[in-house]
Amino acid sequence: MRENRKVDEIRPVKIETDFVKHPEGSVLITVGDTKVICSATIESKVPSFLKGEGKGWVTAEYSMLPRATESRNIREAAKGKLGGRTQEIQRLIGRSLRSMVNLKKLGERTIWLDCDVIQADGGTRTASITGAFVSMVLALNKLVEEKELSELPVEGYLAAISVGIVNDEIMLDLDGKEDFQADTDMNVAGTDKGEFVEIQGTGENHPFSKNEMEKMLSYAEKGMHALMEVQSQALSEIYPPPAKKG
Amino acid sequence: MRENRKVDEIRPVKIETDFVKHPEGSVLITVGDTKVICSATIESKVPSFLKGEGKGWVTAEYSMLPRATESRNIREAAKGKLGGRTQEIQRLIGRSLRSMVNLKKLGERTIWLDCDVIQADGGTRTASITGAFVSMVLALNKLVEEKELSELPVEGYLAAISVGIVNDEIMLDLDGKEDFQADTDMNVAGTDKGEFVEIQGTGENHPFSKNEMEKMLSYAEKGMHALMEVQSQALSEIYPPPAKKG
Amino acid sequence: MRENRKVDEIRPVKIETDFVKHPEGSVLITVGDTKVICSATIESKVPSFLKGEGKGWVTAEYSMLPRATESRNIREAAKGKLGGRTQEIQRLIGRSLRSMVNLKKLGERTIWLDCDVIQADGGTRTASITGAFVSMVLALNKLVEEKELSELPVEGYLAAISVGIVNDEIMLDLDGKEDFQADTDMNVAGTDKGEFVEIQGTGENHPFSKNEMEKMLSYAEKGMHALMEVQSQALSEIYPPPAKKG
Amino acid sequence: MRENRKVDEIRPVKIETDFVKHPEGSVLITVGDTKVICSATIESKVPSFLKGEGKGWVTAEYSMLPRATESRNIREAAKGKLGGRTQEIQRLIGRSLRSMVNLKKLGERTIWLDCDVIQADGGTRTASITGAFVSMVLALNKLVEEKELSELPVEGYLAAISVGIVNDEIMLDLDGKEDFQADTDMNVAGTDKGEFVEIQGTGENHPFSKNEMEKMLSYAEKGMHALMEVQSQALSEIYPPPAKKG
Amino acid sequence: MRENRKVDEIRPVKIETDFVKHPEGSVLITVGDTKVICSATIESKVPSFLKGEGKGWVTAEYSMLPRATESRNIREAAKGKLGGRTQEIQRLIGRSLRSMVNLKKLGERTIWLDCDVIQADGGTRTASITGAFVSMVLALNKLVEEKELSELPVEGYLAAISVGIVNDEIMLDLDGKEDFQADTDMNVAGTDKGEFVEIQGTGENHPFSKNEMEKMLSYAEKGMHALMEVQSQALSEIYPPPAKKG
Amino acid sequence: MRENRKVDEIRPVKIETDFVKHPEGSVLITVGDTKVICSATIESKVPSFLKGEGKGWVTAEYSMLPRATESRNIREAAKGKLGGRTQEIQRLIGRSLRSMVNLKKLGERTIWLDCDVIQADGGTRTASITGAFVSMVLALNKLVEEKELSELPVEGYLAAISVGIVNDEIMLDLDGKEDFQADTDMNVAGTDKGEFVEIQGTGENHPFSKNEMEKMLSYAEKGMHALMEVQSQALSEIYPPPAKKG
Repeated sequence: MRENRKVDEIRPVKIETDFVKHPEGSVLITVGDTKVICSATIESKVPSFLKGEGKGWVTAEYSMLPRATESRNIREAAKGKLGGRTQEIQRLIGRSLRSMVNLKKLGERTIWLDCDVIQADGGTRTASITGAFVSMVLALNKLVEEKELSELPVEGYLAAISVGIVNDEIMLDLDGKEDFQADTDMNVAGTDKGEFVEIQGTGENHPFSKNEMEKMLSYAEKGMHALMEVQSQALSEIYPPPAKKG
Repeated sequence: MRENRKVDEIRPVKIETDFVKHPEGSVLITVGDTKVICSATIESKVPSFLKGEGKGWVTAEYSMLPRATESRNIREAAKGKLGGRTQEIQRLIGRSLRSMVNLKKLGERTIWLDCDVIQADGGTRTASITGAFVSMVLALNKLVEEKELSELPVEGYLAAISVGIVNDEIMLDLDGKEDFQADTDMNVAGTDKGEFVEIQGTGENHPFSKNEMEKMLSYAEKGMHALMEVQSQALSEIYPPPAKKG
Repeated sequence: MRENRKVDEIRPVKIETDFVKHPEGSVLITVGDTKVICSATIESKVPSFLKGEGKGWVTAEYSMLPRATESRNIREAAKGKLGGRTQEIQRLIGRSLRSMVNLKKLGERTIWLDCDVIQADGGTRTASITGAFVSMVLALNKLVEEKELSELPVEGYLAAISVGIVNDEIMLDLDGKEDFQADTDMNVAGTDKGEFVEIQGTGENHPFSKNEMEKMLSYAEKGMHALMEVQSQALSEIYPPPAKKG
Repeated sequence: MRENRKVDEIRPVKIETDFVKHPEGSVLITVGDTKVICSATIESKVPSFLKGEGKGWVTAEYSMLPRATESRNIREAAKGKLGGRTQEIQRLIGRSLRSMVNLKKLGERTIWLDCDVIQADGGTRTASITGAFVSMVLALNKLVEEKELSELPVEGYLAAISVGIVNDEIMLDLDGKEDFQADTDMNVAGTDKGEFVEIQGTGENHPFSKNEMEKMLSYAEKGMHALMEVQSQALSEIYPPPAKKG
Repeated sequence: MRENRKVDEIRPVKIETDFVKHPEGSVLITVGDTKVICSATIESKVPSFLKGEGKGWVTAEYSMLPRATESRNIREAAKGKLGGRTQEIQRLIGRSLRSMVNLKKLGERTIWLDCDVIQADGGTRTASITGAFVSMVLALNKLVEEKELSELPVEGYLAAISVGIVNDEIMLDLDGKEDFQADTDMNVAGTDKGEFVEIQGTGENHPFSKNEMEKMLSYAEKGMHALMEVQSQALSEIYPPPAKKG
Repeated sequence: MRENRKVDEIRPVKIETDFVKHPEGSVLITVGDTKVICSATIESKVPSFLKGEGKGWVTAEYSMLPRATESRNIREAAKGKLGGRTQEIQRLIGRSLRSMVNLKKLGERTIWLDCDVIQADGGTRTASITGAFVSMVLALNKLVEEKELSELPVEGYLAAISVGIVNDEIMLDLDGKEDFQADTDMNVAGTDKGEFVEIQGTGENHPFSKNEMEKMLSYAEKGMHALMEVQSQALSEIYPPPAKKG
């Protein structure tokens, strides 16, 4: 049982576009007390392994300010290397976003998605995916406006949410305190067509059953649908609303 | 359709124990043409964040020999840093194994699981989990024999397998070639009680539906069951066979 | 000549306190289009070289988000090392703030000042100093409120501003475009008693004379005075206004 | 005095070819309880300092699995740098093998020799050289078979062995325990023509005389001769037996 | 008050040219007990950010031998990274020297200035600038002699000196002991035309007033003038003496 | 044939003591055009692996100034890691010096030997060993003078020299040009009792016979004897001359 919201309800979400002035696409996404600046940069070249293949690439970087968290975390730049958690998250964000872009239509360009958490209260990686999607569409739209692309090379909406089992209760969109208590923790990224692009579930403290798995996925679908409504408003002038899933 | 085995069938699996003489527990696991040396080391101390908490820790390291793969991959020691893929895999193996150990019963000890791939043909991370489980039980059994522990602090069998969608067909235990062609790729670790401890599914090339998800999980369960039979034979003298799932 | 402000006038400045919820002290400082999040953390220990000396330490870290700038700059965490510019700036901020703290009264504590530039348009290091001062006083005030300190161990106001020579004209508070054109560039940090704590002037493109030096310092004094007014409003409830310099 | 073999006798040696399937040349060499996987990779380019010179290069990398040794050694990839011992050994292996290859006949190709110790019991660097030679000839022979080379660009057999002084007694092919007790330790690499390509002797615990030096070299010659017999069997179908030294 | 010299007097200075045989320009500069080897290397290419711009670059590296100092300092090569102090100093030396070179006349070449402190007793960064200037002119003169340049692309003399406030007394050219006691510490680099190219003043222990600032600059001017006399003798055969400042 | 000296003759050698003022022991050794500053530091603690064992340690670090060589070599501090050649040399110097010290008599102290090459013309590693020996004895003598040690814990003289085969001729003490042409290259460190502590011979370009080996060792003995004469003069007031080898 939760105090202020139902177990299958997400926290209040806000997406402010053009939060920072320099990037081609930029948002501040707020999910409860979690705040992430997502910026999209479009570069006119691709990594060496893709050169000459006539298609583009999408990649992500993720970082936390030292005091995004309750106690100060040491900067990875000061340590001189990226930690395992950061790399795991960066790869998750990158794969998720890449799945929604038609890389051939994008052409030989790289989209960099920078997700910088300025305040953390659970769900930073899923907020990053949800916000990065909006910043990416904003940036791609600039290319359309500048006639560099004839249409948005995007294949639908993408949002992500966490779900978990806390004290034997399945809950959607865990905040920091719930996340700390959770026995099972799952991050789900999906499309407006009701399909999944990433599922990462871990029951390190408590293995989970097939039934729990199914219920978690149902909650996640509900949460992603609600997030897409907010994304849709932020993109209302440039991208049609998400498909209605039957 | 596959040539030599059914789509829900795993490749031939072999687990040779005591493959290397120095470690407390050591196996060579062979899954098709994938070969991994899994060694377990037990250290009488814990990481600093656990000091004085009266419980233990389980952690894993994963590496490939440069020519485990078709073309030579550059050593991470030569590059001076661990890649994102390696870190992602190490974290997956560590969390999976940790979930099956009663850390309080283990006491202030750390179990290091070293998974070194000497030949790769798909499924190296799941073979690592499956083999590391056996090497861990072997090493813990030494502590029981030496009366340092009164019983094995292990809470059941653990195995892991990959499953994916290749040319619109769901397949169990992808080999290297199938993995390369797969649109959806999922790694599943589970217990002999039919529960999951890790699910990591990615549809970077092709999002997957809930139905596909369910079928993939069923295949995975079948595969893990078969792997536990092999584990059980390797451990026959020291650990009871896996629970029969109803 | 400038379009919208006089040559000895600073850009509009705003200091929002408690911008992020976790740090003991936190501000968002805006100087023109430059925006920096300054967070202060107080740690109950000192670096090893100060152990047992009965006094504290103040240190600073500085970073830019990749898209704080017009073109994307590569993260130092990804490069695996801090660049020379970053280290130079961190040392400047650290020395400046340290000069205003009575380290004996502070006791064996370390104040970490994290300055993260989210949008850059010239003067990021001086905005960092000016904002970090406010976040530091806010954090120290918490210690006073919690009776850990009997009084604020701060010895006056500290602000910093840039000044330079652009097209043979001395100008205060250069924005990004002016900074790019400047032949001489000077950063000045000073106190409300009219004294200097740091002066770093460079005439890489054009050496400067003693007369120019004097005029630049006069402009800088004017600018720092204006900045202290804004700091004073942000701290109005906890710290007396700056001394009037005769 | 030794228990099971004479002081001038080497341990049992076995060389299994094609131990791993991907490399162009691959062996598992076993010398007593020391086991090393040696793989040879041929790359169609040379390091930048050799570009356009019309000749090739031979280089080696050496590593130990963490539990090749009695107590677990920390991975150099995890440390982020190669240790001095590793670099010293890599350079020794590289120089030794390079000395036996006609680099002009090799043409603009690089031979990478990866020596991965899976079990260590003394003499890992000399076993690496001895095994790497065989894997290199196997790999080069593939180029001959594919008509890329008209003949093997190899100038004779190469083997290496250790010799030392243990409790004032000169001994050939020290195992791990003897190596630990040795006052003088020497590694010798030589050819089937009775010449030396590398001698590295160290008397850190006990300087050695010219007479001892000579006797050690005699023992080493005997040992290398025995090793070449084993190499010769492994290569019997593709390379003529070693020259008979008068 | 000082024992052996006046407060506005510099220590004995000696500049030995051609101290090391390989570099194009090389000096050993001795200022009191501070000794720095300054070597200039001219490379026929520029950093990538300058390619094709038709102008050159000047850059500096600074290092101390481990026992240049009273207690042994750890090598930065062993630590695997450059410290903040080193980077700050390298940037200062580089900017100072760059300001005196006509980069267009230099053409697409890079001048590397290596300043290696073999004995430190205060003022190592200013001695480095003063010595590097001489080594740079020597190296450039070789290009003139070899007809690669038609004239020296140098725009006057450059020297640097420290000045500070020790026990409330302003002093020129602090030695190590004075530097340790100083409340204010300033490094000044200037030209023979009486202009400044770098001023870095810090009052970490004691803020300084405008009057003190002015007096420090006067002392510094006197010191730089004396240093230029010594530089001028070292360069007497190839570069005219410094301009007489009115 | 050589122009100015016989094939078994060393270059002119000079050892200046107290070359730098801060270290406990310091020399500048000049061998032909090779110049190395060798400094000895004595630290009152040992590495962790020796703690509580009641004995000391000797270790060495080696570096070249960027322009010690004909073309500029990049600093290892700038690269962020030590190269293989440097590590190989450091280990050689450390082992050689360690062999001559009675570590029990030294007690729980570490001797750091810093060898910094300021000018290189062949034989830098052997000059480092020869010079480091003198600086080490000087430093240890300070401990004797200060009554911290009752006698010098040194077990005789140590010197090192190179020898090689150039155009089929065996030559002692190769200079840079000869070293570049050499087919075989050997470094030998030995004692005044005619024993060897290190022999490192490599015939990368041309394997060498047993006869050549013997002749090279004879030359080396002659060279080391001559070097010990020079060491003996430098140490005349504190250490007895080398033993006469019969």
